[in-house]
Amino acid sequence: MHAVATVEELRTHIQAARQSGRSIGCVPTMGALHAGHISLVEAARRETDFVVVTIFVNPTQFGPHEDFTKYPRPLERDLELCRDAGVDLVFHPEVATVYPTGATTSVDVGGVTSVLEGAFRPGHFRGVATIVLKLFNMVQPDVAFFGQKDFQQQLVIKQMVRDLDVPVRVQTCPTKREADGLAMSSRNVYLSPTERQTALLLSQALQLANSLAHDAQSTPSDIEAAMRRLLESETGVRIDYAVLVDPHTLAPLERLQSPMVALIAARVGTTRLIDNLVISSADSTDLPSS
Amino acid sequence: MHAVATVEELRTHIQAARQSGRSIGCVPTMGALHAGHISLVEAARRETDFVVVTIFVNPTQFGPHEDFTKYPRPLERDLELCRDAGVDLVFHPEVATVYPTGATTSVDVGGVTSVLEGAFRPGHFRGVATIVLKLFNMVQPDVAFFGQKDFQQQLVIKQMVRDLDVPVRVQTCPTKREADGLAMSSRNVYLSPTERQTALLLSQALQLANSLAHDAQSTPSDIEAAMRRLLESETGVRIDYAVLVDPHTLAPLERLQSPMVALIAARVGTTRLIDNLVISSADSTDLPSS
Repeated sequence: MHAVATVEELRTHIQAARQSGRSIGCVPTMGALHAGHISLVEAARRETDFVVVTIFVNPTQFGPHEDFTKYPRPLERDLELCRDAGVDLVFHPEVATVYPTGATTSVDVGGVTSVLEGAFRPGHFRGVATIVLKLFNMVQPDVAFFGQKDFQQQLVIKQMVRDLDVPVRVQTCPTKREADGLAMSSRNVYLSPTERQTALLLSQALQLANSLAHDAQSTPSDIEAAMRRLLESETGVRIDYAVLVDPHTLAPLERLQSPMVALIAARVGTTRLIDNLVISSADSTDLPSS
Repeated sequence: MHAVATVEELRTHIQAARQSGRSIGCVPTMGALHAGHISLVEAARRETDFVVVTIFVNPTQFGPHEDFTKYPRPLERDLELCRDAGVDLVFHPEVATVYPTGATTSVDVGGVTSVLEGAFRPGHFRGVATIVLKLFNMVQPDVAFFGQKDFQQQLVIKQMVRDLDVPVRVQTCPTKREADGLAMSSRNVYLSPTERQTALLLSQALQLANSLAHDAQSTPSDIEAAMRRLLESETGVRIDYAVLVDPHTLAPLERLQSPMVALIAARVGTTRLIDNLVISSADSTDLPSS
């Protein structure tokens, strides 16, 4: 495995892989890798010949009062995990490499970026879209792999790729969970033992939504209210949103449909967590086709 | 020469050229081709192996009261000119192909987009950047060729390419002029014979700026005033701007420097024309290195 920090080195390795006829898979990450990221690497290894993991804590997708400075950056451990997972190339640039002085361009995906995460984190998806497009232009992968955990993010990236004719196929992979249901996240390390227990309410609320959705008498607003009640059953949880929406447009629903997606963002103590579940009449975890 | 209207056909031809080891040159145009465009094709033929001309009158770079509907679209003549010039592939998509229903993404280059053309044509450079990035993603050229005539546009595109790490080299080619100095433009067909004569004031004002700039006693504001006086010496000219600015930042100048660029936008009758001249102490027409 090679690990490089400059675009020139990255392009040299990519070009060599390309010239030997290999297809390129890319897994963009902010590091602090966990089994969720590794499952993306495994998908990339199954579907492409040369797997690139990018590790970059992107400042432009953090708000001014968010956790950019304290976000974990265990680079050596991340490299070890990548090596063990069979990654071919890690790209871990410095901020000044990615955003040299004088850079002014950004990508506005519009549409699905204005609601939910976009409403609670102004500028977040502009930062995400811009860095992902930059990484796509640097790596020029055939396929890029994203987790369903960041549900709205993968929608935004698919919209961008479609709208800008980016020659990359975007594949979304299932959320990885701890044995007790907590969605894996690099931010879980922020949780105290008590908060770690309270955080289970998010996945439990999603499962509750799934159960209620199979009762044809339920309405979307009933289900949203039930999720909120469960989340608020313990102190120390502050809900940003808990909604049941259309999985393509994220628009509110008048009545139940299939598929739908339940999406939650909540603070447990000071740690902001997100989770989601796609709910269809057939089965409750698969992604809708897109 | 092939001429295609779908992205699928475009990509098939490009892929074949790429697989035969040829480098790709791209000349993005809005059609209504003239000798200026053909000079870009000639540059592309010198520097690359497979030359693609795109012909697309891009609605998103026109303001609501601009000339989108009346912009000339002589497709058959354009194809003939391309064939004669040795173009390999023309891509002339329909609007619905380029902007399918539901497209919401745009590119904001910031920086140099806010002044001059950006100030007089709000949204223009957002439209330009978005379509050019889309065309780059469709064609994936090694080199793209733009005219110096649209001076601010080539700056905006270079900034976008740099900021988004787009793997394309952008080359700017000199403005082509009629024998009497009028910069070639697809919009010159709008001019009546009288207006055609009045329009010479633009290139004459730029030449005046060049002469005055070689007198070390001049100040930038003297020169701008002199350009304005000349432009206003005939009725029927309305100036949007006539400035002498830094050729990289387009910022106003306190004092003369080298290089500088003189930029003019003015309406002659109802036709809006632009022209520019790079002025350096050594020579008055070359582009600054960038």
